Amino acid sequence: MHKKPKILILGAGYGGMMTASRLLKSSVYQDAEITLVNKHNYHYQTTWLHEPAAGTLHHDRTRMRIDSVIDMNKINFIKDEVKEIKTDEKKVILESGELDYDYLVIGLGSEPETFGIPGVEEHAFAIRSVNSVRLIREHIEYMFANYNNEVEKHDEYLRFIVAGAGFTGIEFVGELSERIPELCEEYDIDRDKVRVYSVEAAPTALPGFDEELVNYAMNLLESRGVEFRINTPIKEVKEDGVLLNDGEEIKASTVVWTTGVKGNSVLDKSGFETMRGRIKVEKDLRAPGFDNVFVIGDCALIINEEINRPYPPTAQIAIQQAYTCSNNIKALLSGSEKLEHFTPDIKGTVASLGGKEAIGLVGTKKLYGQSASAVKKMIDNRYLFLLGGMPLVLKKGKLNIF
Amino acid sequence: MHKKPKILILGAGYGGMMTASRLLKSSVYQDAEITLVNKHNYHYQTTWLHEPAAGTLHHDRTRMRIDSVIDMNKINFIKDEVKEIKTDEKKVILESGELDYDYLVIGLGSEPETFGIPGVEEHAFAIRSVNSVRLIREHIEYMFANYNNEVEKHDEYLRFIVAGAGFTGIEFVGELSERIPELCEEYDIDRDKVRVYSVEAAPTALPGFDEELVNYAMNLLESRGVEFRINTPIKEVKEDGVLLNDGEEIKASTVVWTTGVKGNSVLDKSGFETMRGRIKVEKDLRAPGFDNVFVIGDCALIINEEINRPYPPTAQIAIQQAYTCSNNIKALLSGSEKLEHFTPDIKGTVASLGGKEAIGLVGTKKLYGQSASAVKKMIDNRYLFLLGGMPLVLKKGKLNIF
Repeated sequence: MHKKPKILILGAGYGGMMTASRLLKSSVYQDAEITLVNKHNYHYQTTWLHEPAAGTLHHDRTRMRIDSVIDMNKINFIKDEVKEIKTDEKKVILESGELDYDYLVIGLGSEPETFGIPGVEEHAFAIRSVNSVRLIREHIEYMFANYNNEVEKHDEYLRFIVAGAGFTGIEFVGELSERIPELCEEYDIDRDKVRVYSVEAAPTALPGFDEELVNYAMNLLESRGVEFRINTPIKEVKEDGVLLNDGEEIKASTVVWTTGVKGNSVLDKSGFETMRGRIKVEKDLRAPGFDNVFVIGDCALIINEEINRPYPPTAQIAIQQAYTCSNNIKALLSGSEKLEHFTPDIKGTVASLGGKEAIGLVGTKKLYGQSASAVKKMIDNRYLFLLGGMPLVLKKGKLNIF
Repeated sequence: MHKKPKILILGAGYGGMMTASRLLKSSVYQDAEITLVNKHNYHYQTTWLHEPAAGTLHHDRTRMRIDSVIDMNKINFIKDEVKEIKTDEKKVILESGELDYDYLVIGLGSEPETFGIPGVEEHAFAIRSVNSVRLIREHIEYMFANYNNEVEKHDEYLRFIVAGAGFTGIEFVGELSERIPELCEEYDIDRDKVRVYSVEAAPTALPGFDEELVNYAMNLLESRGVEFRINTPIKEVKEDGVLLNDGEEIKASTVVWTTGVKGNSVLDKSGFETMRGRIKVEKDLRAPGFDNVFVIGDCALIINEEINRPYPPTAQIAIQQAYTCSNNIKALLSGSEKLEHFTPDIKGTVASLGGKEAIGLVGTKKLYGQSASAVKKMIDNRYLFLLGGMPLVLKKGKLNIF
């Protein structure tokens, strides 16, 4: 009996889930033994996590059980954590076991980029998983709950620093500014006592984004009480706030770190050559030097040749890579060496600002307010449609579009 | 013009609120200037606080704005904190001012009784106010939220010690045992990992209560996973748990202290003679040696002459005292010296156990389960009826009686 080749997919983020889903739909599972490994038995939408972090959306709305989307009669699922990839032995070491493979898909996602700034890992929160955002939500509430129980008031309990005014930082600040009036009501606290800082090292918020849209976002957020500190690098995160490069300290019991991501540190540990933790992949998405290892999502580095700089890692690109990756695996299985090349097709970029507000760029068209917000929800729903069809959209989608 | 006498009521707990309400209803406000002072602009039902502390009822259900019950065109309300009573000057010192009086009603409530055990004030939570129970609720959730974010698991995050198995302790444990399965669901935690300890120094839970009912309560709570440590005095509360008299330590990040109350420390500071912070009042509820100072509620000590021991302070007694107190003030205003004597009329005692469970004693009749629970809710509703009539019952009552 001919032994079926083993396809091993590491990580059930946007890239890994969509690869598994595509391999199912293209019937590759009939000719190969496909295994998906993930730390949790659920998949979550990383791009929504700023909402449960602020407490404006329940985290269950951002996640789904993997077996509710992927047919586990056709794909094996193993709930475990990947520790190391041994490419020379075609083997993956898990926390409680190991797996071998013929074809490997690495979709292990990202880790917060700290730029080596002291104190970030010890004292700052990160928007990176269901666990981490539940903790942020509860930490914020705990600070509000503590405030009125102190005889000497601790103003730092009601101060929130969001480090980084990129997409995640701005989207989180937008949700937080919507949530704070509710928290003030819940805990009998004056809105004036609460301060939210958006601190950014670069000379502008949302670096690289359209200036008019950036101004719209900043004006809107300032009208909700957000204080911007642009062009303001952070030197150190302390237990009770941040120390800025110019020597000023901002006291705050909550610092949320959103200055971008690097690739999963498992890649470095496994001996891959990386840049900020990411593997610069070949045009067919394979890791250089390996004909059986594909890398997708936040672990993959792709250069935008027009400007000779890397594409920022996004869900949009991860999803598109999953299509190319699954097509290429199918080709390899059928003996073809003619693999598809991956080119990102950036359809647009939209940042939500909380409530019914958003900004976006679709092609060259600028979107503001409710229309941008509606496009954002359509993007989210489109992903769910690609992954699980209309039933998943109805179950987990954002249906209050207008 | 004849100057109206000044009646000053300190505290808007059961006793103070009901006194103000009675003075309104008996039209005393027409002949006197009545002022009510309270730390908050709301009144809350102390006997319900174990529910918002566990998170099974929202704290807003336990409180009401004072001006929604007391007509502030007829009674002055001052939101301030009482610091000291100067009886020789007929004056009360507030945090931000002072007031003089002709008649004083002291209804300042209680403080947790720590028995001098080290660490209680620093490390234990108390069920005593809206602020304090919101903090307990959020602290518990914060511990659950933290658990899955730690690489090395901290089991103490999921351990909860309730010190004292009197009425408040048992009622809180009852609610907590109902809440924990919900928290486990919310934070992806196995129920088996969570432990709840009810620790009591006396040789029984609910000391002084009917043995059969105590057994019913303990069996029920044990079936929900509560671990009783009876006859187990606590020597010290530490940051990470409690040290028992026998040298054993129980690690827990949450210790809730419910071993009874003493009177408000303002009484001691003001030079009154007290026993455990309470003033042993005359039969007409006046403080010994003062013809114009009434003491009610948790600040008043009344002896049960049948057993020659003090009545435990309860809402029931505080409410009854408010009737006597307001009648006596009315009599004094009309020049009468014939004051009413106060005798408690204990109608029954019911302890809720969470969910639809409770135990109770009404006269000599023992009540269990749903019927006890229904009686408990009727008691709560009756108070609201006395205070604000049917509208208040409909607004704030517990109407899901069966």
